[in-house]
Amino acid sequence: MTVSYRLSEIAAQLGGRVLGHAEACISQVATLETAQSAQISFLANSKYRAQLASTRAGAVILGEADADATALPRIVSDNPYAYFAKVSALLNPLPEAKPGIHPSAVIGAGAKIDASASIAALAVIGAGATIGASSVIGEGCYIGENVIIGSHARLYPRVVIYHDCVLGNNLIAHSGAVIGADGFGIAMDEGHWVKIPQIGCVVIGNDVEIGANTTIDRGALDDTVIEDGVKLDNQIQIAHNVRIGAHTAIAGCVGIAGSTTIGRYCLIGGSAGILGHLEIADHVEIAAFTLIGKSIRKAGSYAAIFPFSKSEEWRKNTVHLRHLDELVQRIKKLEQELELLKRTAPGNR
Amino acid sequence: MTVSYRLSEIAAQLGGRVLGHAEACISQVATLETAQSAQISFLANSKYRAQLASTRAGAVILGEADADATALPRIVSDNPYAYFAKVSALLNPLPEAKPGIHPSAVIGAGAKIDASASIAALAVIGAGATIGASSVIGEGCYIGENVIIGSHARLYPRVVIYHDCVLGNNLIAHSGAVIGADGFGIAMDEGHWVKIPQIGCVVIGNDVEIGANTTIDRGALDDTVIEDGVKLDNQIQIAHNVRIGAHTAIAGCVGIAGSTTIGRYCLIGGSAGILGHLEIADHVEIAAFTLIGKSIRKAGSYAAIFPFSKSEEWRKNTVHLRHLDELVQRIKKLEQELELLKRTAPGNR
Amino acid sequence: MTVSYRLSEIAAQLGGRVLGHAEACISQVATLETAQSAQISFLANSKYRAQLASTRAGAVILGEADADATALPRIVSDNPYAYFAKVSALLNPLPEAKPGIHPSAVIGAGAKIDASASIAALAVIGAGATIGASSVIGEGCYIGENVIIGSHARLYPRVVIYHDCVLGNNLIAHSGAVIGADGFGIAMDEGHWVKIPQIGCVVIGNDVEIGANTTIDRGALDDTVIEDGVKLDNQIQIAHNVRIGAHTAIAGCVGIAGSTTIGRYCLIGGSAGILGHLEIADHVEIAAFTLIGKSIRKAGSYAAIFPFSKSEEWRKNTVHLRHLDELVQRIKKLEQELELLKRTAPGNR
Repeated sequence: MTVSYRLSEIAAQLGGRVLGHAEACISQVATLETAQSAQISFLANSKYRAQLASTRAGAVILGEADADATALPRIVSDNPYAYFAKVSALLNPLPEAKPGIHPSAVIGAGAKIDASASIAALAVIGAGATIGASSVIGEGCYIGENVIIGSHARLYPRVVIYHDCVLGNNLIAHSGAVIGADGFGIAMDEGHWVKIPQIGCVVIGNDVEIGANTTIDRGALDDTVIEDGVKLDNQIQIAHNVRIGAHTAIAGCVGIAGSTTIGRYCLIGGSAGILGHLEIADHVEIAAFTLIGKSIRKAGSYAAIFPFSKSEEWRKNTVHLRHLDELVQRIKKLEQELELLKRTAPGNR
Repeated sequence: MTVSYRLSEIAAQLGGRVLGHAEACISQVATLETAQSAQISFLANSKYRAQLASTRAGAVILGEADADATALPRIVSDNPYAYFAKVSALLNPLPEAKPGIHPSAVIGAGAKIDASASIAALAVIGAGATIGASSVIGEGCYIGENVIIGSHARLYPRVVIYHDCVLGNNLIAHSGAVIGADGFGIAMDEGHWVKIPQIGCVVIGNDVEIGANTTIDRGALDDTVIEDGVKLDNQIQIAHNVRIGAHTAIAGCVGIAGSTTIGRYCLIGGSAGILGHLEIADHVEIAAFTLIGKSIRKAGSYAAIFPFSKSEEWRKNTVHLRHLDELVQRIKKLEQELELLKRTAPGNR
Repeated sequence: MTVSYRLSEIAAQLGGRVLGHAEACISQVATLETAQSAQISFLANSKYRAQLASTRAGAVILGEADADATALPRIVSDNPYAYFAKVSALLNPLPEAKPGIHPSAVIGAGAKIDASASIAALAVIGAGATIGASSVIGEGCYIGENVIIGSHARLYPRVVIYHDCVLGNNLIAHSGAVIGADGFGIAMDEGHWVKIPQIGCVVIGNDVEIGANTTIDRGALDDTVIEDGVKLDNQIQIAHNVRIGAHTAIAGCVGIAGSTTIGRYCLIGGSAGILGHLEIADHVEIAAFTLIGKSIRKAGSYAAIFPFSKSEEWRKNTVHLRHLDELVQRIKKLEQELELLKRTAPGNR
């Protein structure tokens, strides 16, 4: 299937100002380097203007500042990157899923599946679960008992949702994601760990995306909560009773320990970690590979990356880290002795 | 289903001393903040006594030191947190799985499935596998050929156990866990990697819990061994030929490299790592985000966390790490020169 | 099934020079410590010669330098470890998969499945997918629409391949691996994230192994590419538009951010990370737990590990890291003052 649009049609749908040949016909998006004549590209940053000069794209999306930097058919937008995303969605609609339940799916008693929903081959829908309008449950997904999934959700193959979790509209969940497994709650009792039943759920708002093999544990007593518009990359681990504020985006391999609350519009870099029982304010940015060990009360950017170097230099420098306190004491002593010397120096007498 | 117990009944089953109204009827557990009148909460740490004063809980579990800190119906225990866990288990029994094999499950030749075991929809049980009494194999699990699973195991949907692994009683394995995949064994041979067949297995003791999407690789030659009572959180990676001692608990996202032996009763924080071929003693605690690069022969607490700060401070400070050795040389030189100066200072002549 | 070979037969197949009793019969491989009389072991490093002296192995593989270090039947090879791997493969052939399609598998319209391929129980093959000769698709795998898988591939149970990805010959993919899920592409637009459709694919060369629960995202516009002979351990996350050069080996839990290019024959340690849009040269070694934040243009070994210590020492030393710049200023000041003092010292006047 190929979809194609004229620039004028795109602007009619998505806004923006068309300059140049408005009837140019576009059927796909591409980068400035690789785009061909039926493709549209974008320039989100003026520093790539050189690529604009040499592109073979049929059209381009750019900001007001670059509006005259090319003669190509173009759409001027306040936010070329987001505009590009919307054009791409227009040109690459998701394949329509056929409503209905594949005969190999296993449907529990009392499950309420909207007639417009699609349940793919070998999916299991637990007893009492609810699947909203136009939602797609992929091949081999497992939806536990009494789970509620909103409308227009798309679960890719082999997503697992444990019993009683509640998921909003427009959810995207990628393969291997596990939502609602038991939190890691154990108590030591005379040399043995006793399991603490995890009786909370996971509650997920609208417009959330969850990456492949990401895990979100159910709450121990209260619920784990993912607010509207949160975007989670792959292989993230979110422990029990965490709350993630709306529109926060988290990159791959991040781990968030139990009962931590993260604000709205935070950005968390890959493989970062946040210890348990902390509070992170709104609009906090955390660098990749950074462990946050205390609450952050103030918006801003935080980091804790150990800088890499050639292994031999790393070895030479790093050996001193184990003696840093001693080093500081040596500096203190130097300062004191120097002070003493200065006082007794000839010029001071 | 709601279960409810009088305090006196709970104490009859679990021990502890009841104070106050022993016939108070309890049907659920909750935190001190959220508990209602039919719920029991706990105070494990005297510093939360203020919450005790304001709780609406119908009863509370607390330690001897706090026995008189409330007039609420209460159970006094040496270990309120573990006691609470047991009460919660009493009030929240796992849903009973119906014995029998779902018609959509695929059962290999010669599989020995106890009559009391439950094999859920779309599970695959390999040829010659053994499933013990009262064990539950969840939807879409794959149990490889000749695997042995003990009694009272509970495998949540989509757990994979490769062939020939041996798992003990009371195992809990969460969705997406993969037990017994090949270890990462390769040998370089004239510009190409040659795969080293992984002919060991994974052997797991009794009372082990394995988190969602955790992976435990089979041994290269000998077995990978997880001893009794080990508790593993989500997304942990355990490489081939690792041995984890009994009752060790490991938080999410930890990676343990090949052939490392970890002692008993260790506690390993989230996203920590342990290199291969090391030995970690019993009762070692490893902080989150800490890489252990040498064997640890002595019980105790170990850490290697780079402290986070605002990004601009981090940048300013961190730039010096690449010159730490030079810095130490400068300090040495200062010390030597100062020593020289002191010797030649007026007071010394 | 037991396979057994005489040393002479092994050498006839794999090369190498037999010393001692060439008709010794070998049916399994083992370590020097555990080997029995029908087993062959190896000595790859002369420093383990003591183990050679005490082994009960029936034969041993060793290098030229150790050729005379034992009287046991032995094969001398330039590369004892790789030779051992090949002997092990000889003695431990993979169980043959029966060609054909299990009746419980779900096959999409127009799928082209070679007659010698094996599609196991409950696997789903999407419409238009191609499965090459002798390839094995394990239980519960999901192969998306129009995916192409080469010959002699072995997908263990519950691997997911999203639509349109292309995978080469001799692929090994372990359970839980997810190939071709959407990359993490989002654009902020007036307080909401807009999803950027991920219209590239994943293209995987020949002879690649992918570990359990590893994820490789599809490209945003162009493809994500894994070249020939790449070996990936478990729980690795490879973001969209990454390219990994031929014969690079990556240990568990590594995360590689978007659009980064990694060279050939690189070795990347466990839990390491590489930020996005970087270039890593051929033959680069990256230590475990190391974050690479800049391109590496030169072969060599790189590291950034924070050294661990007892927690109390760690605390004492680490507190200074937040004041490292101040410390450097203090050293500078000391140097200046000392310089001044030296100039005005009695001996200089």
